[in-house]
Amino acid sequence: MTTQYGPSYVRAIAPYVAGKPISEVAREFGLDEAHIVKLASNENPLGMPESAKAAMAQAAADLGRYPDANAFELKVALSEHYGVPADWITLGNGSNDILELAAHALVEKSQAIVYSQYSFAVYALATQGIGARAIVVPPKGTSSGAPAVKHGHDLDAMLKAIDADTRLMFVANPNNPTGTFIEGPALEAFLEKVPKSVAVVLDEAYTEYLAADKRYDSIAWTRRYPNLLVSRTFSKAFGLAGLRVGFAIAQPELIDLLNRLRQPFNVNTLAQAAAVAALNDRAFLEKSAALNAAGYRRLTEAFEKLDLEYVPSYGNFVLVRVGNDDGAGARVNLALLKQGVIVRPVGNYGLPQWLRVTIGLPEENEAFIAALEKALAA
Amino acid sequence: MTTQYGPSYVRAIAPYVAGKPISEVAREFGLDEAHIVKLASNENPLGMPESAKAAMAQAAADLGRYPDANAFELKVALSEHYGVPADWITLGNGSNDILELAAHALVEKSQAIVYSQYSFAVYALATQGIGARAIVVPPKGTSSGAPAVKHGHDLDAMLKAIDADTRLMFVANPNNPTGTFIEGPALEAFLEKVPKSVAVVLDEAYTEYLAADKRYDSIAWTRRYPNLLVSRTFSKAFGLAGLRVGFAIAQPELIDLLNRLRQPFNVNTLAQAAAVAALNDRAFLEKSAALNAAGYRRLTEAFEKLDLEYVPSYGNFVLVRVGNDDGAGARVNLALLKQGVIVRPVGNYGLPQWLRVTIGLPEENEAFIAALEKALAA
Repeated sequence: MTTQYGPSYVRAIAPYVAGKPISEVAREFGLDEAHIVKLASNENPLGMPESAKAAMAQAAADLGRYPDANAFELKVALSEHYGVPADWITLGNGSNDILELAAHALVEKSQAIVYSQYSFAVYALATQGIGARAIVVPPKGTSSGAPAVKHGHDLDAMLKAIDADTRLMFVANPNNPTGTFIEGPALEAFLEKVPKSVAVVLDEAYTEYLAADKRYDSIAWTRRYPNLLVSRTFSKAFGLAGLRVGFAIAQPELIDLLNRLRQPFNVNTLAQAAAVAALNDRAFLEKSAALNAAGYRRLTEAFEKLDLEYVPSYGNFVLVRVGNDDGAGARVNLALLKQGVIVRPVGNYGLPQWLRVTIGLPEENEAFIAALEKALAA
Repeated sequence: MTTQYGPSYVRAIAPYVAGKPISEVAREFGLDEAHIVKLASNENPLGMPESAKAAMAQAAADLGRYPDANAFELKVALSEHYGVPADWITLGNGSNDILELAAHALVEKSQAIVYSQYSFAVYALATQGIGARAIVVPPKGTSSGAPAVKHGHDLDAMLKAIDADTRLMFVANPNNPTGTFIEGPALEAFLEKVPKSVAVVLDEAYTEYLAADKRYDSIAWTRRYPNLLVSRTFSKAFGLAGLRVGFAIAQPELIDLLNRLRQPFNVNTLAQAAAVAALNDRAFLEKSAALNAAGYRRLTEAFEKLDLEYVPSYGNFVLVRVGNDDGAGARVNLALLKQGVIVRPVGNYGLPQWLRVTIGLPEENEAFIAALEKALAA
């Protein structure tokens, strides 16, 4: 008999599948890295802002030192920017870390976590990682489906799904991988109804892409709802995915619990410096949002021309249905890879007929559309 | 009645206390940052190797992209360097992350973890973080104490402490904060006796500082012991503390379990690139070890001259007793801070009469010794 290590709930986890890096696709398909287009991981196609590069270069002098475990300067910057005291803020190694910390800090093995089907894969992983019970709520309109709500969170059903063991809910707005959006008033009405004994992680990784008329003030809600934790990231519109920095805002009681489990040096020195700069680079954010809006129009026009169903998106990506059989996503993905275009298959999300495409630079979008046309014609 | 969030074992954790950053001491004591000497966090006083700086600058072009979740190039480099297959390696956001991952992946709430008193604070935090039971074993020779073994791991007692619930042991060699060392043969004899159902994390954060005659091949042991996981870091001799990269080597079954819980982007892009360069920068490592050996001689000579007891150290730091009352460590620490010298008080380790001093550059060591003389005379 061989020894089996680890709890059964850990052994049962299937690890997260990340978007293929450009270098890996180049190796696998014998392609030139310079000609590969990656629209797979919802990164900002503009890359990192120049302001953040400059800040990072200054901080690079002292990398033999540990990072500031309290991230004094970044917390001061976030505190001023979002109008909350510094002890209402904690930091993560990306918002992935925030999501994991919330699960570990708020839920134990015998308890339950509620989230929507077709929402971010890390909610399931964080739940499995602590051996908690997942209550996965079917999305609104899946079967009947007006496109605007298809695959979206069904907040009423999520409320009804709360049971006596439930300690946490994950709500993504906009949601990844679907791009669906819940209007602010609907979200606040939902928060009003969630029992105070259940914490809500509101994951707003894509919030900086919202048009002005869609914005709502979730940070202000943290004052009214002691069970609300807002999660944000510097990996999307702020352009710092490679540096790893996310943050959460909530009342001190929740923040303090996450801090007890947070690894003290979870955010590295360069990430702290770059985030301070990126946070206040309004011009970069505006340019990113405008580029994204134009790219969204271009991609969706192309999908309509190709008669492909897509889910209207409020993020920097679009979920598009590339066939009616369950092999479609993998098949079209492979055909795209061979042409040097990396997008994200979402079979692991239970969406095998769909691909998720990040909105890129204009030339990247054109390369994807041309490759997609070829892939569909084959 | 107010709602209490989180499991009771999370609410009971006292968060890790990091070494004070230079900027914080400057603010608190009104000092000039340029004149502050930090010997508090066992960092490499040479900073980051130039080879790693160059590698990082190249990688900085693409920081809008997520890191390679599989860290292909770093794993290839580690695989070649240590002579193990790539699937025997996993990566952490510093070795802190490795230690946390091991606890989470191998132990559940009802189970136990064995470690030595006066060993690295993260062992206790990782145990508390999953609500597991800590079996803390008194060190060898604490009361009787020939200096060479004082505060060292008592391996025989640790073996005896294993009970039916024990799933994991943490062993640090050299140990932090004491600097004590277990000879290779004694360590291997210990591994031979640990039941295969109990995993052993051998934390070798300081192994690159060992003199040639103290080295042993723990990586080779991973082939013989399926329950052994060797943890290493780039934060000490390799000089990359600010970038956050650690790694573990073990047989694939253990590595695979850690990978199931590992956050996919836990090691950032710059850290991956810099680590590849630092790994093969033998000249930098040799220079670091030589500087450390000379600094150790200088500090211990000074302690002897001042008639201060210290624990002979095999790391890049020395634990020194600065007084016989339990206020001594805090008192002398404050006197040092006022003079712009940051060391580490270890009252939270249960050693209130002691300070842990990182071995610095020659001029930093001199500044510390001068400040210490003043502090003791006051």
